[in-house]
Amino acid sequence: MIRIKQLVIFVLPLFCVTAMAQLKQFTLDDLLSGGKTYESMQAENLHTAWWGNQLVKTEEKECALHLKNGEWKDLFNLSEVNAVLKAEGIEELKSLKNTKFPEAEQPLAYLSCKNAKVLFNWKIKKLEWKSLLPEGLSWEDWNSVSRSLAYNRENNLYVLTADGKEHAVSEDGSREMVYGQSVHRDEFGINKGTFWSPDGRRLCFYKMDQSMVSDYPLVDISTRIATEVPIKYPMAGEKSHRVSMGVFNPETNKTVWLQTGDNTDQYYTGITWSPDSRKIFLYNLNRDQNDLRLWQFDAQTGQKEKELYEETHPKYVQPEHGLTFLPWDTDKFIYWSEKDGFAHLYLYSLKAGKTVRKITDNRCGVVVELLGLNKNTKSAIISCTGLSPIQHNLFSVAVEKDKILYLDAGKGVHEGNLTSDGSMLLDKWTSPEVPRKIDLIQTNTSRSKNLLTTQNPWKNYNIPEISSGTLKAADGQTDLYYRLVKPTNFDPHKKYPAIVYVYGGPHTRLVEASFGYMYRGWEIYMAQKGYVVFVLDNRGSNERGLNFENVTFRHLGTEEMKDQMKGVDFLKSLSYVDASRLGVHGWSFGGFMTVNLMLTYPDVFKCGVAGGPVIDWSYYEVMYGERYMDTPQTNPEGYQENNLKLRAGNLKGRLLVIFGYNDPVCVPQHTLSFIRACETAGTHPDLLTYPGDEHNMQGADRIHLHEHITRYFEDFLK
Amino acid sequence: MIRIKQLVIFVLPLFCVTAMAQLKQFTLDDLLSGGKTYESMQAENLHTAWWGNQLVKTEEKECALHLKNGEWKDLFNLSEVNAVLKAEGIEELKSLKNTKFPEAEQPLAYLSCKNAKVLFNWKIKKLEWKSLLPEGLSWEDWNSVSRSLAYNRENNLYVLTADGKEHAVSEDGSREMVYGQSVHRDEFGINKGTFWSPDGRRLCFYKMDQSMVSDYPLVDISTRIATEVPIKYPMAGEKSHRVSMGVFNPETNKTVWLQTGDNTDQYYTGITWSPDSRKIFLYNLNRDQNDLRLWQFDAQTGQKEKELYEETHPKYVQPEHGLTFLPWDTDKFIYWSEKDGFAHLYLYSLKAGKTVRKITDNRCGVVVELLGLNKNTKSAIISCTGLSPIQHNLFSVAVEKDKILYLDAGKGVHEGNLTSDGSMLLDKWTSPEVPRKIDLIQTNTSRSKNLLTTQNPWKNYNIPEISSGTLKAADGQTDLYYRLVKPTNFDPHKKYPAIVYVYGGPHTRLVEASFGYMYRGWEIYMAQKGYVVFVLDNRGSNERGLNFENVTFRHLGTEEMKDQMKGVDFLKSLSYVDASRLGVHGWSFGGFMTVNLMLTYPDVFKCGVAGGPVIDWSYYEVMYGERYMDTPQTNPEGYQENNLKLRAGNLKGRLLVIFGYNDPVCVPQHTLSFIRACETAGTHPDLLTYPGDEHNMQGADRIHLHEHITRYFEDFLK
Repeated sequence: MIRIKQLVIFVLPLFCVTAMAQLKQFTLDDLLSGGKTYESMQAENLHTAWWGNQLVKTEEKECALHLKNGEWKDLFNLSEVNAVLKAEGIEELKSLKNTKFPEAEQPLAYLSCKNAKVLFNWKIKKLEWKSLLPEGLSWEDWNSVSRSLAYNRENNLYVLTADGKEHAVSEDGSREMVYGQSVHRDEFGINKGTFWSPDGRRLCFYKMDQSMVSDYPLVDISTRIATEVPIKYPMAGEKSHRVSMGVFNPETNKTVWLQTGDNTDQYYTGITWSPDSRKIFLYNLNRDQNDLRLWQFDAQTGQKEKELYEETHPKYVQPEHGLTFLPWDTDKFIYWSEKDGFAHLYLYSLKAGKTVRKITDNRCGVVVELLGLNKNTKSAIISCTGLSPIQHNLFSVAVEKDKILYLDAGKGVHEGNLTSDGSMLLDKWTSPEVPRKIDLIQTNTSRSKNLLTTQNPWKNYNIPEISSGTLKAADGQTDLYYRLVKPTNFDPHKKYPAIVYVYGGPHTRLVEASFGYMYRGWEIYMAQKGYVVFVLDNRGSNERGLNFENVTFRHLGTEEMKDQMKGVDFLKSLSYVDASRLGVHGWSFGGFMTVNLMLTYPDVFKCGVAGGPVIDWSYYEVMYGERYMDTPQTNPEGYQENNLKLRAGNLKGRLLVIFGYNDPVCVPQHTLSFIRACETAGTHPDLLTYPGDEHNMQGADRIHLHEHITRYFEDFLK
Repeated sequence: MIRIKQLVIFVLPLFCVTAMAQLKQFTLDDLLSGGKTYESMQAENLHTAWWGNQLVKTEEKECALHLKNGEWKDLFNLSEVNAVLKAEGIEELKSLKNTKFPEAEQPLAYLSCKNAKVLFNWKIKKLEWKSLLPEGLSWEDWNSVSRSLAYNRENNLYVLTADGKEHAVSEDGSREMVYGQSVHRDEFGINKGTFWSPDGRRLCFYKMDQSMVSDYPLVDISTRIATEVPIKYPMAGEKSHRVSMGVFNPETNKTVWLQTGDNTDQYYTGITWSPDSRKIFLYNLNRDQNDLRLWQFDAQTGQKEKELYEETHPKYVQPEHGLTFLPWDTDKFIYWSEKDGFAHLYLYSLKAGKTVRKITDNRCGVVVELLGLNKNTKSAIISCTGLSPIQHNLFSVAVEKDKILYLDAGKGVHEGNLTSDGSMLLDKWTSPEVPRKIDLIQTNTSRSKNLLTTQNPWKNYNIPEISSGTLKAADGQTDLYYRLVKPTNFDPHKKYPAIVYVYGGPHTRLVEASFGYMYRGWEIYMAQKGYVVFVLDNRGSNERGLNFENVTFRHLGTEEMKDQMKGVDFLKSLSYVDASRLGVHGWSFGGFMTVNLMLTYPDVFKCGVAGGPVIDWSYYEVMYGERYMDTPQTNPEGYQENNLKLRAGNLKGRLLVIFGYNDPVCVPQHTLSFIRACETAGTHPDLLTYPGDEHNMQGADRIHLHEHITRYFEDFLK
């Protein structure tokens, strides 16, 4: 039963345009990233970088300084830079968009060229410093203090010091022994494998031994004869890799190893240097992911000095962030925790050996990002959901006392970029009716100046109505947010087919108060073709707190589907929705949800399209999978409950399954084993694969994919 | 333009049944092998074996001798056999159907048990001889004279002599070094790798070194973690394997090797022992397949003694048969050749060192099989197309003089089984209106006695009209044979969709004068669903002679399609065919033809289903591919002409491509690279794969496959 009374509808005013014949129709190329005309359909933007507290506009052809009167003063242009580079034998740049300004007081631009890193002095039009690079580098990490560069080449890690000398950190690198790269499959907030000390004199790096991890045999069909390209893929319950942390000193060419003890079935994350470059802190999490320890190491000897903190949880603990030391008090650092059920910031004192304060509280909702610290006001500049579960707003929160300053306009989704001293904030934001605004904010006063308000890039197009609201979850209590896209040229007296677009997994939400409630381009396209599209963030999804998320523990899929069916009840209650023509579509976790919904409610959904789905969690990897599902050995019922192969015989409607043939995330075994199970059970899914593509289709393939998905619904749902 | 005047229609009388409401409808299970009810829908059959010149019925539960008065006299039954086997500790048999009678004068039945080979004396109900087998054997080859058995175990070849001793022929067997197995990918008529001397004292065997052949990475998704299962697959123009022939003597445990010279890029086939077990003959064919030599070796030393014969051809020579020595004159043997443009038999004299006679001539059409020799009448008993290009009839042809005796009834397709002395012939045959007859024929007189005339197993079913006729090929001259299946309950005033089922490749024909013109069960099913089905054997297909076949040389697909389009013209000329609803379906070479026709005539075919297609001949294997296409290096234009990836952008109608995920024949690279090419070109094929299946789907998968194919045509052609 739908509680219509409790329904709150936000209708997007911008989109309430009366359909007119002269308005244009969208193409998929207009609507999807990778489309030929996509960029031209986007709201205007600004590329900027901070130079100390001053804002620099870094455009393709030139860099210009923002003046107090609001004007832009030219600093230098691409031709000038390239003339100097050419004279030095360095490959010319195509754009200045990625220019950085590492030294607040110096007129130095850091330029990352193909074969060199340079510091360009724009006052005298000369290179202040350069470092020529060898060929074939992958990951690169530059330290602006020592001007040393760490990089990977052919599976080994090197440091190029400012004097141009290359130092080999490792020599036995291989696909089995990985140095200086991201580990643990990018879970636990990890996205890189090198960590410079603040003084740039030592490099902490990950080493990952995955020789004991099984290969998954991906196949490259683009070679003359197809070639196996195996990847190391630790599946749930199987042997996992072992990670250790080294500290390399280019002055001695020696590495010391952090003495963590046995690293079998252990995760290490949150690597943080002390401000004085003498200590290293990191989190150790057990494989079961329910016991987290914060350790301190001596960076010079590798000795473990202290265990600072422990956090356990009956389900799981999820460290996603390192520590942030206070610039005004190096005894203290900020750490993140969900221990009260929501992501918050806490203050820890090394001297006291304990947490001394909770910095954020429920006025902040959940903290999404710690942008930095303002050392004058002694406050943390954060992004959080304090004003609405579907917004991100920027707050200044005093670190050592109870004070919150709201920095932004209070609506929409804000993305901040802070100066290193925390005094100035660039705020790029959108709201349901605002395509993009860019404001410059003083964090001590919240005084704000608008730099850019974009025109609506779609003003000549026939736009469907997009609205948002809430409905109650299957638990009868929790508010869930949805987005509803009505058909273009909507006629309330007609009956329309409706498609549920679903993700449903952790760490993602699909409905937020950004432009058009974070519509996906394809939804606009389907609205144009006469479909209702409905999107609901079920329990288990992101930024609603730990209990909202971990209700799915040990049986991913079950609670999520119950909530999605509440959304279906709502859809069916709409007079203009034809309940006999309901479709469902999703990718990845959403592909899993799509197949699961088709098999669990075969009389509800007439047609579905699942992309890159999980079919059997035992084929998914250890880090993500075991957090939510434990192992197949310790949770056999849970793995069986949503093993979709076991219910392949339930398929009744039309189901298209699509996967990237070289998907290293949801490996092809998922989809292929489901197809096999259906064949054995006598049911008939449809199939497509994109050879050469990974977990998601990009560029022109993304357009092709959505043409294909659209055609499937047009064939079988219309 | 269709030359309707020249059209000959044979309408199948049996099928001209007026539709009646009470007649049953077929299910796919009724119509396709692998279906649950398929066996019960088949015409009655007889399992037999020769005991000297006497016929024995080998039924599941008993063996019975055919008496002159037409009655069957029981010889022994399964219980008697199993009682003896059990007493000897040998696993019991489930059926006597495969019983052989190796000695004409002795009451001995050769039984192949799971763990033993035995000779059972049914007079005294005892085992005359037994040989217990080790476990894990693959190929087995028994010689009835020495009672020695050759077999493969774990990649090595062994001989078990009658005394129970096992002799290792090889020790270094592996997937790279293969002993005693079929070589050259079963081309050139090769289907085994061991050849006993007539006296059973020496074993000639193939050894294949494929260490230099590239692996193709097939993937088994049924294991806990998917596993690569690479196969050695030499693609056109790439490095091929090297084959040699050994002769193993179990008395000395020594192997001598036939001194062929350098075996790089050479094929060896037609291995034949001389009747006195002292010589071995074989054909050597060069990789270009246009130069064939017949060589004689001393079996004791391996020395090459003579080159007996050479045959060249500007396109290709295709040896498919070994030699047959005359029992009455061991100086002479019969060999096969297409040197006059049709497969015929020739007589060669070793003393004369040359061909002394052409045995068969154009009265025989093409010779299809040499069943054996009658030593009393000195004639060869053959199967041939002498009476009609779409029949197989049994002739007795005098070997040394010009005399032909027609042995069978002159209609239909006959399959003969001859006694070893050639005097008696069991003739199993069908014709368009005869489901099956079995006759016993004296080959000296052609006197015939009918043993079985089956009832029509379909008498209670509603059967569509199946007819056959000819039309002119695209060359304007050659007659091509077609089969036409009209919709069940045909109404000439209606317009029906029509599907072309196509194969089109060499060494196969689809239309013959057997029951229902060799209908495929699926055609009956589609007729029942209201489709016309049309099948045409184009130029390039089987048993019409070399020029009919090799017109396709160096550009497989091109001429074949021209002929198929003549068939389409014919279809369009039929008043009841809706030319706007033409479909096409085929598998393997027929899959290639289907995709090619869809891309070449995008406005003709609205819908197609291609299975296990060749997409690019450079992905096909050396032996078959290079015979017709030469290599990608020597024939780049030909490879490009029908490389379907290059025309993926032409796709307009609906095309479903299906492949066995573990297909070692048309490897997955074909279909996957085509899908990729379509995606890049912006066209939209559909896809299905059967993980675990190879080139063809069997059993329940075959039913599922045809349900899927049918659904596709119902979705997009109906």
